[in-house]
Amino acid sequence: LFAMNNSNSKFTTNNSHCIDFNDVKAAYEIIKPFIHQTPLMQCSAISELAGCNVFLKTENFQKTGSFKIRGATNALSHSVKEDAIQCVITRSSGNHGQAIAYVAKSMGIPAYIIMSNTALKCKKDAIRSYGGIIVEGKPQLEHRKKITEHLLKEKGGIFIHSGQNPHVIAGQGTLAMEMLEQNPNLDAIVAPVGGGGLISGVAIAAKALKPYIKIYAVEPENANGCYLSKLSGKLEYVVGTEATIADGVRANIGESTWPIIQDLIDDVITVSEEEIKQATVLVWERAKLVIEPTAGVGVAAVVGKKLLSAKGFDNSVKNIGLVLSGGNVDARDIAKLIANA
Amino acid sequence: LFAMNNSNSKFTTNNSHCIDFNDVKAAYEIIKPFIHQTPLMQCSAISELAGCNVFLKTENFQKTGSFKIRGATNALSHSVKEDAIQCVITRSSGNHGQAIAYVAKSMGIPAYIIMSNTALKCKKDAIRSYGGIIVEGKPQLEHRKKITEHLLKEKGGIFIHSGQNPHVIAGQGTLAMEMLEQNPNLDAIVAPVGGGGLISGVAIAAKALKPYIKIYAVEPENANGCYLSKLSGKLEYVVGTEATIADGVRANIGESTWPIIQDLIDDVITVSEEEIKQATVLVWERAKLVIEPTAGVGVAAVVGKKLLSAKGFDNSVKNIGLVLSGGNVDARDIAKLIANA
Ligand SMILES: Cc1ncc(COP(=O)(O)O)c(C=O)c1O
Ligand SMILES: Cc1ncc(COP(=O)(O)O)c(C=O)c1O
Repeated sequence: LFAMNNSNSKFTTNNSHCIDFNDVKAAYEIIKPFIHQTPLMQCSAISELAGCNVFLKTENFQKTGSFKIRGATNALSHSVKEDAIQCVITRSSGNHGQAIAYVAKSMGIPAYIIMSNTALKCKKDAIRSYGGIIVEGKPQLEHRKKITEHLLKEKGGIFIHSGQNPHVIAGQGTLAMEMLEQNPNLDAIVAPVGGGGLISGVAIAAKALKPYIKIYAVEPENANGCYLSKLSGKLEYVVGTEATIADGVRANIGESTWPIIQDLIDDVITVSEEEIKQATVLVWERAKLVIEPTAGVGVAAVVGKKLLSAKGFDNSVKNIGLVLSGGNVDARDIAKLIANA
Repeated sequence: LFAMNNSNSKFTTNNSHCIDFNDVKAAYEIIKPFIHQTPLMQCSAISELAGCNVFLKTENFQKTGSFKIRGATNALSHSVKEDAIQCVITRSSGNHGQAIAYVAKSMGIPAYIIMSNTALKCKKDAIRSYGGIIVEGKPQLEHRKKITEHLLKEKGGIFIHSGQNPHVIAGQGTLAMEMLEQNPNLDAIVAPVGGGGLISGVAIAAKALKPYIKIYAVEPENANGCYLSKLSGKLEYVVGTEATIADGVRANIGESTWPIIQDLIDDVITVSEEEIKQATVLVWERAKLVIEPTAGVGVAAVVGKKLLSAKGFDNSVKNIGLVLSGGNVDARDIAKLIANA
């Protein structure tokens, strides 16, 4: 049994990984004064449905409404240490953009956020309220990549990728340090995966602190690039990910996150649109927490019990840390979601 | 200034009060093992709108979804100490009923909850899920009072009033002890008032611990009996309180709570239906907390800045404790509220 568990759970320093645990520890020192330590909460209704003890990491309460402030703070702090920068440019479905705009403002740096014209209004509004400048492109990534190149030529400055920038990944990893500080007895951590910055950082930190902890990534069936990559053993991109309501995870994993995901993620679970909506509403009604559908992706795997049959999940796994990664929804979207649920 | 502040804020043991601070301290010892210590949270958006530092007491996370478990646990503990009881009977818009049903179940005692046939489905469902037996009456209180008498004759057992039972009032007062433990710097506490059990218990405890703290009660314009009573100096009842969306505060204050309210409440603020709805949605969107409209009543007075011109509110008041008294709404009601907001 021990040998089986051991398969790909043990942490080993790996040259193909763009960061290691020291980078996460360094990130935590840098960002600690600027972020909230969000509560790790329990909700008996959710634990009952899950069939195990679930600990909710409430990053919906985090500054700017999602965990993205962690990676953004770390990456921008490193950039300004290295250079005087003219501006920062990024692409985002919204939460990373909000975080970058917020941190850049506090540093007095202009921020350009390239977004799909299908991005949520509430996320755009928040970016503007932090002084970020939104540049809209088509839903097709290729179009927004062209805008990125063009803007970088025109404005100079630096580009901070939401998922593949190593400082971003290290920043997101601080979440796992915090969770294991708050509850050292966690046996598994579950989080949604988009570009993979979150799950990669979490895996690096958690497996360094607790080698046999399980790390599970969850994604929508309609945006299942991480699942397909693990299945085939090589990085796969999917298109048409607009089809999921979970706007935060329409991105594909990439060159930085794939090697970490390949080595350290125990399994990838996929969930349907219906499961995502129901899980999101369930958290509002039972846990009294407002989360966005992207955070509901992770919840769906847990309350729908798919987690119980994931690879590496056995009787020894009792305490699950479930990342509620963000809470940026607007009231009208809430109402629509409920009407359709 | 000191003399002015002093007007009716100073706590004095008063024979006309059905409880004193010792009752609240005793209640806290009894109930502590059975309740959650809910977080006292801050939300920068809410503090900005309020124009002062607001600390949110998140009783929406409390067991059974509201503070009512405090009074119910205390009252039932006293009853079972005194007698072997056959059953417990109460009248409730829902939250007190949920709390009584939950505690009674844990003690193996049948609970009958008399409710208006207009009560919320989600609250009825929760009562049934805790094994409570619902007896429906008309919205008119007189009708449900008759049912109460009838049931007491038929079933025996004891009646625990949601607002006027002294053990209930003492139990609700533990909320203020907890808030001042979590932040001793609170200068004022704001909470919604229905029957007045909450605000009375809070006032007794808070003014004993901190004589010059201000206590503000908030109620809907459409259910303003507490306001009218303070205005005329005698206990006034209003009818037609069904007209407010805040179902938890459709009750009138009464013989037990009025003397305390008369002496210890600094002011009563009333808010409109529109203000209640907007405040409720605001808390969901900005604080990421699901609260019910009744909890939104208190929020409305704070974010709408009416609090700033309440009696006794001056420059010395910086830190406000705002009681988010409950979170029991169902998703469909949320959607309706947003559609109308
Ligand atoms: C709320 C939320 N959860 C999860 C994710 C996924 O994070 P990552 O792209 O690092 O995998 C995002 C990304 O935008 C997000 O906004
Ligand atoms: C959520 C909520 N807030 C406030 C109150 C008012 O409490 P009281 O009746 O003790 O004044 C109630 C009463 O039902 C309630 O349910």
